[in-house]
Amino acid sequence: MSDYIDLHGNPQSFGDTEAQREVRQNDRDYVFHSWSAQNLISPMPIAKGEGVRFWDYDGNEYLDFSSQLVNLNLGHQHPGLVKAIQEQAGRLATIQPAIANDVRGELAKRIVEHSFEGARSVFFTNGGADANEYAIRMARHHTGRQKVLARYRSYHGSTATAITMTGDPRRWANGVIDANVVHFFGPYTYRSEFHAETPEQETERALQHLEHTIQLEGPSTIAAIILETVTGTNGVLPPTPGYLAGVRALCDTYGIVMICDEVMVGFGRTGEWFAYQGYDVKPDLVTFAKGVNSGYVPLGGVVISEAIHETFGDRAFPGGLTYSGHPLACAAGIATFDVFEDEKVLENVRDLGERVVAPWAAEMVAKHKSVGEARGKGLFWALDLVVDRETREPLVPYNAAGEAAAPMNAVIAACKQAGLVPFAHFNRMQFAPPLIIGEEDLVRGLAIIDEALTVADGYYVGA
Amino acid sequence: MSDYIDLHGNPQSFGDTEAQREVRQNDRDYVFHSWSAQNLISPMPIAKGEGVRFWDYDGNEYLDFSSQLVNLNLGHQHPGLVKAIQEQAGRLATIQPAIANDVRGELAKRIVEHSFEGARSVFFTNGGADANEYAIRMARHHTGRQKVLARYRSYHGSTATAITMTGDPRRWANGVIDANVVHFFGPYTYRSEFHAETPEQETERALQHLEHTIQLEGPSTIAAIILETVTGTNGVLPPTPGYLAGVRALCDTYGIVMICDEVMVGFGRTGEWFAYQGYDVKPDLVTFAKGVNSGYVPLGGVVISEAIHETFGDRAFPGGLTYSGHPLACAAGIATFDVFEDEKVLENVRDLGERVVAPWAAEMVAKHKSVGEARGKGLFWALDLVVDRETREPLVPYNAAGEAAAPMNAVIAACKQAGLVPFAHFNRMQFAPPLIIGEEDLVRGLAIIDEALTVADGYYVGA
Ligand SMILES: Cc1ncc(COP(=O)(O)O)c(C=O)c1O
Ligand SMILES: Cc1ncc(COP(=O)(O)O)c(C=O)c1O
Repeated sequence: MSDYIDLHGNPQSFGDTEAQREVRQNDRDYVFHSWSAQNLISPMPIAKGEGVRFWDYDGNEYLDFSSQLVNLNLGHQHPGLVKAIQEQAGRLATIQPAIANDVRGELAKRIVEHSFEGARSVFFTNGGADANEYAIRMARHHTGRQKVLARYRSYHGSTATAITMTGDPRRWANGVIDANVVHFFGPYTYRSEFHAETPEQETERALQHLEHTIQLEGPSTIAAIILETVTGTNGVLPPTPGYLAGVRALCDTYGIVMICDEVMVGFGRTGEWFAYQGYDVKPDLVTFAKGVNSGYVPLGGVVISEAIHETFGDRAFPGGLTYSGHPLACAAGIATFDVFEDEKVLENVRDLGERVVAPWAAEMVAKHKSVGEARGKGLFWALDLVVDRETREPLVPYNAAGEAAAPMNAVIAACKQAGLVPFAHFNRMQFAPPLIIGEEDLVRGLAIIDEALTVADGYYVGA
Repeated sequence: MSDYIDLHGNPQSFGDTEAQREVRQNDRDYVFHSWSAQNLISPMPIAKGEGVRFWDYDGNEYLDFSSQLVNLNLGHQHPGLVKAIQEQAGRLATIQPAIANDVRGELAKRIVEHSFEGARSVFFTNGGADANEYAIRMARHHTGRQKVLARYRSYHGSTATAITMTGDPRRWANGVIDANVVHFFGPYTYRSEFHAETPEQETERALQHLEHTIQLEGPSTIAAIILETVTGTNGVLPPTPGYLAGVRALCDTYGIVMICDEVMVGFGRTGEWFAYQGYDVKPDLVTFAKGVNSGYVPLGGVVISEAIHETFGDRAFPGGLTYSGHPLACAAGIATFDVFEDEKVLENVRDLGERVVAPWAAEMVAKHKSVGEARGKGLFWALDLVVDRETREPLVPYNAAGEAAAPMNAVIAACKQAGLVPFAHFNRMQFAPPLIIGEEDLVRGLAIIDEALTVADGYYVGA
């Protein structure tokens, strides 16, 4: 007897209530969860995932419009990735980093070939945080300088240097662990730090602000500038026109290493292999994780320029980890490139982003007064929700919790009740579905969000 | 046509020379290697691994007496682990950490059940370095203090806080990234910092030194003491009698969190599930990685005491990572517990360690004048090589490279030529074979090391 019929028409079961109880019980009894007060959470058990959908043990179906933590670029249980993992597991699950390994070399080659001109090699890590840690280490040794400039409204991971570089509340309780990190403001036209009125003015002023920061911190002390090419969790903020080229120019002027954190946006999220390729700029180091293999096996890394690679030609790089270039993870990375090509994933992202989401987003601004601004690229979008379009006061305050977060929680609940999990954050309705999504599912998901926005409208107090 | 017959009598091939060339070429062209000057290395390609053996593309067979990076506790391609990975990949490769997941909960349960009394939960990470980063974060928030005491002659990983805690040359080029780390000396009777003549005296004096360090740093400023239960890479140093209990007592006296780093020795290396269990001590936090699933899928974690878990009961833990509790990695962890039980792995380690290695080690001391001391536990051993037993001058200087390292390199080369890869470090012939090794292979490997020690004897200059 089956509990439900899956997308291919095969009977499936969720397991019985006993199984669900056991999952919940073991989780509560033994698992310590990230970023949480352990007694105040009640994690939902998931029974199964497939493509852009997953199901809980009660058979409720959800559209995954956050691609888990924006890592599941090829969706749940993609057969190409599953097969690659199963085959590699049977062939050679692991081997240490000092060995030359076929899949490790092949994946590094594919990544370099799809990177900026002058990219030379890849250093593999386990995830996004350590990719950023090692990128910073390379920049420090390459320049002989210690300071790092990072932006407010950013997330770079949670190990010591990565969390210190992070520019959101997840850093607060951690104080300053790496003392050589300085924060500055990036462009955000809708909530401009620089009192700009147009994106062009925002670019000009944000670059001026960055140059002032460099000058006042001391150019000769600054190893690197790190930024999310398109800011992710903290707002889906594509760079304003010319901003990245301007950062590149400042880095050249002052001998600073430019690091693009593409942990969230790399591998197709914005319709390019890497998001910086949409902005005509060449970074020195690029960090990635998540999309490289959709997180089916933990993997991250750093793409390294020729010049920085050469710094460590005759001098040892002082860093490493047991699982650098893990074969099982790399095999899933190679399969990712194959699937992107076979299924024309980038084309799908661009087409759906431009043809379906962009006009829908404009429509939302027109239709819902709570939608102050809509912005995004490819399949990565945010609606900046407000209670007043004039003042742009956000639907909920920055870092709101408890009662103060109620309006946003109501919007999210409306999505979930209608069967969609968004990638919401603070006052923003964000979404980032798997890149293999079809038009029909996308349109269905957008309709659910549209409907949920009426809840946000209910909190509107402006004119 | 087959290149060789494998251990089960099946014909196998290494691939042709073309394949080998491609592996080497891609590695050289695209892979950035840990801890290395990229132009000065020539990584060996490995074609295949099975059990305690691996083969290069020329068909040369090696006994893996370093278990790769001392992670391959169940050997290469263990069918139980391979099957678990293949099945989980087909079921649900990944799901985000905020979800309740069956294999994540089941592995956490098994780990807690095999841990110290009062262990409450497990926080999963990707590897050893981040496990230590998060353990320190928990200790800091639990105590409200910032400083960490770590030992010289230690390795704790390479992300910012972990590398700062490390007490070996891998830290040097990284300076001080986390300013709240202080180093102290642990017991090492053969090269005593405390001019002790017996292990008991070494314990007493090492504890006195630790207490002085605590008092002079300020007990109210110290969050944690972190130590490798049995120091790994830096010498295979089992604690002297009563030392760990003494550290526990000091932690209790001063309200300091005791962290055992079991990344290398956890999961059977010394003949216990966790090495601390052999020393009758209860830590507050235990970090693990490597052996938890033999590194088949990247995984690490922290075992957390009830008291520290409760600190984050109503207050959020400020840390996390995308792949915390990765299902594929956890499935391989569950299989590890099953294999340990089915194949009586702990029993094998204890039996071979006591019955075969210990007497052999004593014999080496008697037979080779270059063997100043032999020490170890289970299947984790070191021979401390010297050029003079009187002065105990090491075979090569601390952190020797190039010409200065030649004697040790000659010993290692003799092992490799005879088909064995040891876990050598500085002046020490160390070894750590997979825990599933049979007596015949173990004896064969020990004979190779015995033979190679005659090379070390050739450098002896003492009486
Ligand atoms: C932009 C960015 N950088 C770094 C990270 C950290 O990656 P990980 O969680 O794998 O450490 C994230 C994770 O969300 C991210 O979005
Ligand atoms: C004792 C110890 N701690 C921590 C680590 C770091 O683990 P990883 O390389 O997985 O970061 C190691 C690695 O060798 C280790 O031996």
